[in-house]
Amino acid sequence: MKNFNPMRSVILNCVRDDSDLPAAYRWLYKHHVADSMSQFAPYVTKYATYRALPTPPDGIDFGTYNWIMTEHYWLINPFPAMGSGSRGLAFSEYWPSDFLEITNQPPAEELRNCQWQGTKDGYHPIVFAFMPMFWEDDLKGSHRTIEDGPNFRWLTVFKYPEGVSREEGDDWFLNTLAPALVALPELNRFVTSKVLDAPKTGSFQRVAELWFDNSKTWQKAIAEIQNIVAKPSWAKYDKFPYLEPYNDFVGTFLLDRPESDHLQQFRGYVTTR
Amino acid sequence: MKNFNPMRSVILNCVRDDSDLPAAYRWLYKHHVADSMSQFAPYVTKYATYRALPTPPDGIDFGTYNWIMTEHYWLINPFPAMGSGSRGLAFSEYWPSDFLEITNQPPAEELRNCQWQGTKDGYHPIVFAFMPMFWEDDLKGSHRTIEDGPNFRWLTVFKYPEGVSREEGDDWFLNTLAPALVALPELNRFVTSKVLDAPKTGSFQRVAELWFDNSKTWQKAIAEIQNIVAKPSWAKYDKFPYLEPYNDFVGTFLLDRPESDHLQQFRGYVTTR
Amino acid sequence: MKNFNPMRSVILNCVRDDSDLPAAYRWLYKHHVADSMSQFAPYVTKYATYRALPTPPDGIDFGTYNWIMTEHYWLINPFPAMGSGSRGLAFSEYWPSDFLEITNQPPAEELRNCQWQGTKDGYHPIVFAFMPMFWEDDLKGSHRTIEDGPNFRWLTVFKYPEGVSREEGDDWFLNTLAPALVALPELNRFVTSKVLDAPKTGSFQRVAELWFDNSKTWQKAIAEIQNIVAKPSWAKYDKFPYLEPYNDFVGTFLLDRPESDHLQQFRGYVTTR
Amino acid sequence: MKNFNPMRSVILNCVRDDSDLPAAYRWLYKHHVADSMSQFAPYVTKYATYRALPTPPDGIDFGTYNWIMTEHYWLINPFPAMGSGSRGLAFSEYWPSDFLEITNQPPAEELRNCQWQGTKDGYHPIVFAFMPMFWEDDLKGSHRTIEDGPNFRWLTVFKYPEGVSREEGDDWFLNTLAPALVALPELNRFVTSKVLDAPKTGSFQRVAELWFDNSKTWQKAIAEIQNIVAKPSWAKYDKFPYLEPYNDFVGTFLLDRPESDHLQQFRGYVTTR
Amino acid sequence: MKNFNPMRSVILNCVRDDSDLPAAYRWLYKHHVADSMSQFAPYVTKYATYRALPTPPDGIDFGTYNWIMTEHYWLINPFPAMGSGSRGLAFSEYWPSDFLEITNQPPAEELRNCQWQGTKDGYHPIVFAFMPMFWEDDLKGSHRTIEDGPNFRWLTVFKYPEGVSREEGDDWFLNTLAPALVALPELNRFVTSKVLDAPKTGSFQRVAELWFDNSKTWQKAIAEIQNIVAKPSWAKYDKFPYLEPYNDFVGTFLLDRPESDHLQQFRGYVTTR
Amino acid sequence: MKNFNPMRSVILNCVRDDSDLPAAYRWLYKHHVADSMSQFAPYVTKYATYRALPTPPDGIDFGTYNWIMTEHYWLINPFPAMGSGSRGLAFSEYWPSDFLEITNQPPAEELRNCQWQGTKDGYHPIVFAFMPMFWEDDLKGSHRTIEDGPNFRWLTVFKYPEGVSREEGDDWFLNTLAPALVALPELNRFVTSKVLDAPKTGSFQRVAELWFDNSKTWQKAIAEIQNIVAKPSWAKYDKFPYLEPYNDFVGTFLLDRPESDHLQQFRGYVTTR
Repeated sequence: MKNFNPMRSVILNCVRDDSDLPAAYRWLYKHHVADSMSQFAPYVTKYATYRALPTPPDGIDFGTYNWIMTEHYWLINPFPAMGSGSRGLAFSEYWPSDFLEITNQPPAEELRNCQWQGTKDGYHPIVFAFMPMFWEDDLKGSHRTIEDGPNFRWLTVFKYPEGVSREEGDDWFLNTLAPALVALPELNRFVTSKVLDAPKTGSFQRVAELWFDNSKTWQKAIAEIQNIVAKPSWAKYDKFPYLEPYNDFVGTFLLDRPESDHLQQFRGYVTTR
Repeated sequence: MKNFNPMRSVILNCVRDDSDLPAAYRWLYKHHVADSMSQFAPYVTKYATYRALPTPPDGIDFGTYNWIMTEHYWLINPFPAMGSGSRGLAFSEYWPSDFLEITNQPPAEELRNCQWQGTKDGYHPIVFAFMPMFWEDDLKGSHRTIEDGPNFRWLTVFKYPEGVSREEGDDWFLNTLAPALVALPELNRFVTSKVLDAPKTGSFQRVAELWFDNSKTWQKAIAEIQNIVAKPSWAKYDKFPYLEPYNDFVGTFLLDRPESDHLQQFRGYVTTR
Repeated sequence: MKNFNPMRSVILNCVRDDSDLPAAYRWLYKHHVADSMSQFAPYVTKYATYRALPTPPDGIDFGTYNWIMTEHYWLINPFPAMGSGSRGLAFSEYWPSDFLEITNQPPAEELRNCQWQGTKDGYHPIVFAFMPMFWEDDLKGSHRTIEDGPNFRWLTVFKYPEGVSREEGDDWFLNTLAPALVALPELNRFVTSKVLDAPKTGSFQRVAELWFDNSKTWQKAIAEIQNIVAKPSWAKYDKFPYLEPYNDFVGTFLLDRPESDHLQQFRGYVTTR
Repeated sequence: MKNFNPMRSVILNCVRDDSDLPAAYRWLYKHHVADSMSQFAPYVTKYATYRALPTPPDGIDFGTYNWIMTEHYWLINPFPAMGSGSRGLAFSEYWPSDFLEITNQPPAEELRNCQWQGTKDGYHPIVFAFMPMFWEDDLKGSHRTIEDGPNFRWLTVFKYPEGVSREEGDDWFLNTLAPALVALPELNRFVTSKVLDAPKTGSFQRVAELWFDNSKTWQKAIAEIQNIVAKPSWAKYDKFPYLEPYNDFVGTFLLDRPESDHLQQFRGYVTTR
Repeated sequence: MKNFNPMRSVILNCVRDDSDLPAAYRWLYKHHVADSMSQFAPYVTKYATYRALPTPPDGIDFGTYNWIMTEHYWLINPFPAMGSGSRGLAFSEYWPSDFLEITNQPPAEELRNCQWQGTKDGYHPIVFAFMPMFWEDDLKGSHRTIEDGPNFRWLTVFKYPEGVSREEGDDWFLNTLAPALVALPELNRFVTSKVLDAPKTGSFQRVAELWFDNSKTWQKAIAEIQNIVAKPSWAKYDKFPYLEPYNDFVGTFLLDRPESDHLQQFRGYVTTR
Repeated sequence: MKNFNPMRSVILNCVRDDSDLPAAYRWLYKHHVADSMSQFAPYVTKYATYRALPTPPDGIDFGTYNWIMTEHYWLINPFPAMGSGSRGLAFSEYWPSDFLEITNQPPAEELRNCQWQGTKDGYHPIVFAFMPMFWEDDLKGSHRTIEDGPNFRWLTVFKYPEGVSREEGDDWFLNTLAPALVALPELNRFVTSKVLDAPKTGSFQRVAELWFDNSKTWQKAIAEIQNIVAKPSWAKYDKFPYLEPYNDFVGTFLLDRPESDHLQQFRGYVTTR
């Protein structure tokens, strides 16, 4: 018997380049969505995929993931026996043989043996982070309704560099960076939560969403903020946001509505004719 | 981490008069259902709206709400931080500027500052009560199946007057009134539960459903019962059910099937052409 | 082989009184919707039921039907062999034994032998009229969008008295009455079509929809118009609209959205618990 | 431009033996349903599969097909250019390499070159017949509703032997055999239609459905009828129904409800876990 | 308040003989599925029915159930007050008067008073067993994906004879029988879990699934295994699997995909026309 | 009465730049899909939107549209009274005030008064073309199934320059260009149809789809083909495909599966939380 701790998770996937999209999407909708729903429909209450908006100019300096963000709401920790070798499921998921290449990840052996390690010019392994069901900190725009206009969501997931404690990092983020962001007129909405410690699906420490009208106001805001917020003493990366892109800091740009809310909308791989 | 305590809730809404129905329904289906599902689909397992049947003659003496009853089943207490000012949600719900007028509620400031207060000739603020998942007391008709005929449900929500303890009130309800109701040949089904203390969304104390064939047999039964059950000593309201309508006692008349089971049936605001 | 002539139809049903609603709705959702979809899903592209709004004061003077309006879009004439005794269908529809009483219709034999005949104080038999797919005449408000506010639709179906030709009647309706209605500031939208001659499912001749903000502006408009438009010479009924209610003139008050778009939304008779 | 002639078709499929069911059903739901819907959703209004009930004792003497019956309703003739080599579709359907063996059909070359030819002890090639939208002849039980009890449907498809004209055959079927069948107390429902000449998807000439309570009353009825109706002079097969099973006469036993109404119910290949 | 312990259950139903299928399926889809969903949709996250594949030769020696297996995933124990007489639900489920006969169960009184008791030649009462959400032991084929080919699932539910402790029985099953099964080349997949003690819905102790390509490889495997694994000393039944069929050992043969995943796919009782 | 001529249409939309995507998608899913379905669900059998894949390098030289392609299947010509001012519909569609700017179209007045006119560096007005239900010419890859791998679809819509007859242009396209394209090893699939003359929704003359594995093989193929196929004598544009991009030749790059098959998948504007 367990306590009840429903959770939300975000998963970010890249493609190596735009040319991989047909193969990547074929895996997603012809294989993975049905595989996933078969597996976890009894304990996942929402399973939705958002297609990343095109990476804005300079987006690469912010560790931008270019394919999809997948959001789950879990009634249970789905890794009951992580490490035991058994998942307790009738079927394994299907992966095409070139899945790791298509999604710009290291070879399987490397993935298994090393810690998660992404680099700007190299691999961008899948990012997987669990969060509380509700946003912990609501820093700006809590009254925004869906009637208030388009939303350009910048979802960021990050950790502080080795040697910096989560407390120290969060102190800077919440008390120095966040107030400066809140002051930007272009920023419409700002919420953030700590990444949960269990289940531990990676080394990231915090998730934050910053919403703008569109990519132009995001660019304007980013250009402003780097003149306002100085590099913290502990930072090992010189440029704003002072966290190494694709390694300590990743993000993706999203609409407020998923491309597909699979449990509600999936109807099989039905194509053009 | 939390214990697991799934719950059911009922919400009763009025319209000021029939003329408000087009505006009220437009808010419901063009705005509110999608707002709500966006917000709570990950932890609400049923979200259904029942349209109130026309108020029968004398229905107003029983605090009858004339628009809709909305039923939710919750996996969690949805008010994790009530009072903190933050709801932890990306979006707020949209309300039209005349929502309080349309739904016959006091102005916003009054609503916020005062305790819930309805009156027969004045406001009928929204009633919101949480109940256990299962009916606690099954007083009559437990073998009824859907094949047994039409059901005219009288859903009542009530509290005892100030100064009367819940125990004293319930003792009268369960041991004096209920047996007399059970004895009525017109009554087909009778179930009741205590309103839960947490979450506390109002001051009501008990929910009861009494089912009849139709409004005529309800009227007949009501006419009979008031000759049988005398006013309890603690009552401050003289007429049956000896609880002040719209303040201590409210109710609504429903079919056994919702107008819409939104999570299953909502498909967007699709209209006539 | 046949020409292609897709059509729309409207059906108006009454209940004898409000007390019949549980039985009437039980027939609709527990029996009829599935019966109907089983039968005509292959050639009906939309099948939707709108619940009548409460009859406004004086609504009875306009032949107001008080229960539901059902709208179908047909790819074919569904009466291929009317009169032959065979419908060519595997199943007949189920009707409860008291269906005619509940829906305020004459006994079966009378229904079968007589022409359709409704009266204000007597029976209100089912009204069934076929119309073209598109509205023929768009008299006011063609730019209205769903964003423009709530819609209170007055759907009317009527015929001219015996001895008045359709042309004569329509001439008055389109050239005398309609312009006066269009001039009313309360009227937001006005469209009308001739009832089709085939299939012939009754004696009504014209359908018109007039939209208002709500029932109060409808009342105001009706009060005005009867002072403006005089009784036509051929009329046999003295009060506006100069057509005998429940016999020559019927109507119903509707929202712009159906209660249920069955082919999309029906999921079986799933009830409260 | 074309005339409008919506149609219904039935397709009967066998499996070689029960052991083929996992492979056959995998083809159906993992591949074929989505392939089919991708292809014809724009002009098929119902696409449903009924699983054959177990073949009753002696069922094999009536050409019983043991797997599925698939029913389509078509708005158009889907073979616009049959024989031209082009189907005008973006995708071809997928067939597993052992499809013909699994479904007890002759090898592809034989199928292509020969006329349809089934035998009792050999192949049972797919049966495909187009019918009018509505049953042409309603011979018994036209008032049956879904409330009247379970239905055990015997769907038969047949042709008269070579050398017997359709008229001659139908004369016997409609005027000699049918009245005798109608007289059987076990028979609840009896409808029949001619197979359409266009599209020509096989050599069968007539479809008939006979409904019973269950397979036992079917057996009883069959045992009786063969003593009542004598072999027609033109028959080349000695036993009732005097048409060679699996060649001139095939049938299948069905419920009144499909296993899946694909356009409404298909949600992808979602499995156990 | 309760701890959170989501569970899975399997229910096996028989029909007396094939002739009962129309009545049995009519109960299932015309009555029971909607009854069930009305009742437990708020706390059941998956509700799916698998139709039993035809019983293979000798299947009867393994206690084969011949109609349906129904799988539920429960967020709560649905028997909160078992024995109290009250289920806390608005409606009871509907059962046709011949339900027990059709499903080959003892008369109601016997069912109520006795322990569960099935016999090979007599009754086969409903089997109902609760299991953990995830399979406890994954003994063979954990890498199998849905792309790997058809799956013929043998779902077995069993208990050890009276006088044999669960530990002793499981020791034989897991350490003697299971390794021999795993060694069979025909076996593709093998998972097993203990039946949960609460809720206690019968006396069965273990569930196991063994997957093969089809019934022929199952037969081959069964023929082999009985020569390899000897009867345990405690067994009271002489033939493999050394547990009395229909009393200590039952099973059913299934596809990997349900006939209907009701919460996702049910749309009412929509029939042929 | 009309003949029956079901049709397919494609609509191509641009955004001015990537920054417009949140506003454009908000219009699509918050307003337009429901507006559209309300209007045409009775006579549109498929309504699907495909998101354009990122424009490949040099894609702009081929008139690449960068946002969405919307596909409809129509049972009727939806412009019954084009030019009459009346559309015969209850509601008009909603357009945000900046719709034309967002979608890179000329101002409304210019759109209304001029012929369709796009330019490479200026406006890219909406492209709307009707085609037959089935592809007319199947030039390569007719046996391709969905199992054969990912598909990168290049949908092109074009017309020949003024002064060149359709026959002359098609002769070059079908007899000179197409055979050279078919010979390219990178090309997997090639189908084409004439644009229908009625309804006339623009000046384009032909639609063609060419499928590749991905954008890299498309680029390779394009690089090759321009060395193989010379400019036709009548061409007014020098570079391959010898038709002026965004004026005579437009295209878009698509997956084989729509982002949303709206009639099947739309569930309202349900967002992140």
